[in-house]
Amino acid sequence: MLEAAEVVFASQGVGAPVDEIARQAGVGVGTVYRHFPTKEALYQAIVVDRMTQLVREADGLATAEDPGAALFAVLSRIVEVATQKRDLADALSRAGIDVKTASSDAFGEMRRAVDVLLRRAQAAGVVRADVNLPDLVGLVAGTCLAADHPGSDAGMTSRMLGIVWDGLRTSHAG
Amino acid sequence: MLEAAEVVFASQGVGAPVDEIARQAGVGVGTVYRHFPTKEALYQAIVVDRMTQLVREADGLATAEDPGAALFAVLSRIVEVATQKRDLADALSRAGIDVKTASSDAFGEMRRAVDVLLRRAQAAGVVRADVNLPDLVGLVAGTCLAADHPGSDAGMTSRMLGIVWDGLRTSHAG
Repeated sequence: MLEAAEVVFASQGVGAPVDEIARQAGVGVGTVYRHFPTKEALYQAIVVDRMTQLVREADGLATAEDPGAALFAVLSRIVEVATQKRDLADALSRAGIDVKTASSDAFGEMRRAVDVLLRRAQAAGVVRADVNLPDLVGLVAGTCLAADHPGSDAGMTSRMLGIVWDGLRTSHAG
Repeated sequence: MLEAAEVVFASQGVGAPVDEIARQAGVGVGTVYRHFPTKEALYQAIVVDRMTQLVREADGLATAEDPGAALFAVLSRIVEVATQKRDLADALSRAGIDVKTASSDAFGEMRRAVDVLLRRAQAAGVVRADVNLPDLVGLVAGTCLAADHPGSDAGMTSRMLGIVWDGLRTSHAG
């Protein structure tokens, strides 16, 4: 149901009727309303679901062989998801739904998972030791926020993240 | 008068009376109103003035001996000014004054000045060639935006900028 709602919101905007979401999910409208009394509740569930998936991916990489690659993979995924879903998040934010507050537990879980990866990468000597979690979160959040800056193009987000990553690493290949 | 207004706004907030600004500037209230009919006009003049000063600093470094140091110095100054004056900008933004739109010419001048420094640093081989101006502006803007992220401390902004800078450089000392 969440996946169906995400597809419908993304293609038709947040004004899409709940019927359409129910049809896409192959359930009755009543079933949707029973689980999610408001469209806001439905959207917040989507965000939390997406964050939970990211946290699961991050946790899955907590014992990866290459701690640097693991951290970079997770940061890339966060930026990818955050920038892809921006339009939807913006539309809902304008509609008065504060996504960040609603999913603050999910954000906390994400910070914890990223912190594990950061510490491992630092312990392995791959990432500089003088960086802390807020610095890293700030740089990644800044990259996401800057991705819709005037003059941005399709490759901008990955170039910016690449630059941040080169700055985070203790050594550089080229 | 602009300097006086800046001091008064910073210490007393945007609600400070115009009398106070006039007193601080050593002029009559009428003089203030003649130049700036509204408090908004006064604030926008402050922002444009600050940007113009930064552009002048940047232009002054356009032929500096060390193009890399010149670019980094200007980026540092931009981040410093942007983060120091955040409270004031936020307060005015909440009061309905769109600073960015109002001073878009000044922002354009800033972009032009930074572009000159970027191209020189790239021509000197100090900064990687695959970075363009929007990437750089995005990273710097992102750093400024992230500086008031939860969990930030006094050194966070300079650490973040240092990481971005290390990522921008073609070679690394340590």
